[in-house]
Amino acid sequence: MSKVLFGVDLGGTTVKMGLFDPEGNRLQEWEIPTRKEEDGVHILPDIAASIRQTCTARGIADEEVLGIGIGVPGAVINERLVPQAVNLGWKDKDAAEELGKLTGLPVAIGNDANVAALGEAWQGGGKGFRDLLLVTLGTGVGGGVITGGRLLTGAKGAGGEIGHIHLEDDEPEACGCGNHGCFEEYASATGAVRVAKRVLAETEEESTLRGKDFTCKDLFDAAAAGDAVAEKATRKYGEYLGKGLAVCASVLNPEAIVLGGGVTKAGDVLIDLLRPSFERCVFPGCADVEFKLATLGNQAGIVGAAKLVLDHVKRV
Amino acid sequence: MSKVLFGVDLGGTTVKMGLFDPEGNRLQEWEIPTRKEEDGVHILPDIAASIRQTCTARGIADEEVLGIGIGVPGAVINERLVPQAVNLGWKDKDAAEELGKLTGLPVAIGNDANVAALGEAWQGGGKGFRDLLLVTLGTGVGGGVITGGRLLTGAKGAGGEIGHIHLEDDEPEACGCGNHGCFEEYASATGAVRVAKRVLAETEEESTLRGKDFTCKDLFDAAAAGDAVAEKATRKYGEYLGKGLAVCASVLNPEAIVLGGGVTKAGDVLIDLLRPSFERCVFPGCADVEFKLATLGNQAGIVGAAKLVLDHVKRV
Repeated sequence: MSKVLFGVDLGGTTVKMGLFDPEGNRLQEWEIPTRKEEDGVHILPDIAASIRQTCTARGIADEEVLGIGIGVPGAVINERLVPQAVNLGWKDKDAAEELGKLTGLPVAIGNDANVAALGEAWQGGGKGFRDLLLVTLGTGVGGGVITGGRLLTGAKGAGGEIGHIHLEDDEPEACGCGNHGCFEEYASATGAVRVAKRVLAETEEESTLRGKDFTCKDLFDAAAAGDAVAEKATRKYGEYLGKGLAVCASVLNPEAIVLGGGVTKAGDVLIDLLRPSFERCVFPGCADVEFKLATLGNQAGIVGAAKLVLDHVKRV
Repeated sequence: MSKVLFGVDLGGTTVKMGLFDPEGNRLQEWEIPTRKEEDGVHILPDIAASIRQTCTARGIADEEVLGIGIGVPGAVINERLVPQAVNLGWKDKDAAEELGKLTGLPVAIGNDANVAALGEAWQGGGKGFRDLLLVTLGTGVGGGVITGGRLLTGAKGAGGEIGHIHLEDDEPEACGCGNHGCFEEYASATGAVRVAKRVLAETEEESTLRGKDFTCKDLFDAAAAGDAVAEKATRKYGEYLGKGLAVCASVLNPEAIVLGGGVTKAGDVLIDLLRPSFERCVFPGCADVEFKLATLGNQAGIVGAAKLVLDHVKRV
């Protein structure tokens, strides 16, 4: 009898689902819509029904299922309670217990960013490392920390939320979190554009970006095409990125830092850009870090959710 | 048959030793000199002999000893190897295996700052918390991180060495680690004096500190006595301290931060001084932190070493 795992990545629009074997091989992948109406009461029953259906269709017996792992868009307390997931309409939801009762299967639950980190650590860019930091450079900056092979969740599930480490004292613009000078204000895709606009404002020099409403991708494309102002801006971006990662590395002493998210479409140049300030700012005892790019893309969530089952399952 | 643990705090001058029961009660405490001659070859045999002697004197059978925990002044790799401990003359020392062979007892080994953190977490200011950060404000700034009840060591044993997180970009003076602008350059006892000297230099205002070669204690005493410049300097010190701790808290999401080391002789005022900048800089999701003062003083090392045995013993 072979064993299987379900990995569920619960997003605000769709629920991505995957069936895996214990070695992390993906046997099937599908998605269902996230029905958010009535404070999201249908979400877990929909997931349970879809899993049941899959088991029936593939002739999988309950004893063959090691469990269901699920990543949710919100903090998770004590590996079961979701105090609030605004995107789903949930409040004080004991999601692990509820899904466990609905399916009769063991359920493990985690924050989606942390779970994606676990996925990259298990089967992606961080494969083979036991101490690593995973950073998602997207609209915001997300993070996940694996230490000694285990996810660092922190007291309230906000561990590894490195987007909001305080980086600059004199930032006039407020971050989404309400503070000023957060890492994410510079290192996210939005941050890259902010940094570039400031570089543009400081010079009269001609640039293909000037006067345009450009994106982070436009910025890196312009730099790659030899636009001098864009090059300067991406170097400045790399300075912020390297400095923030150096702070994290000095606290955590990771073996590797894995970078994911939209900004990493720029490729390995990102690592070249961050390295000078990383090396200047990192504690020498923590300087020996391998930089990697994430490889799983938006599948990291279902892969990590499956790994969550292997690490820790709550049988209900 | 009752069980016992030995906790050993190996310092550059003396070896502090303690005998504990598994609940953490101290049954006996003593110390022996650290013989550093001949690259420290006598240190472990001396410790082994002293433990043997104690067992004989108290009629303790080998089966009653759960193990020996030892904190060493240097990084510890894979919970056994000490690549370098300059204060002892050690290099590439497999201290766990060696002490295990000498005593025939299970041995657990850790970095001294981390081990002291574990002691405070078990029986001191951090008792009852599973996610906490312990910070030693002394000549330098040391740290230890407990996450989910376990010590965060990092890839090379430098996890929690928060004294060297990069805090300021424009610091002209170099830190002991070679970098510029490390947390420890402001938040250590030495750092407090540095900060105060700068505050003094920026004003003509009279102060009892002016023209003197003052210590961190003198500074806090002067502030307590109402010296306005000293008060300003301690507020500035608190700003740096709060900012650095906010960065750490935003990465780790601890339940509590425990402050120890010489600077904490200033008492609870330290917590009042750091709180404004901590609250300004910390990620709101990680802001719910209890601040505590360490309570074990220089016994934290032997207590934590004993706890190391309970957590993880390498039987040789």
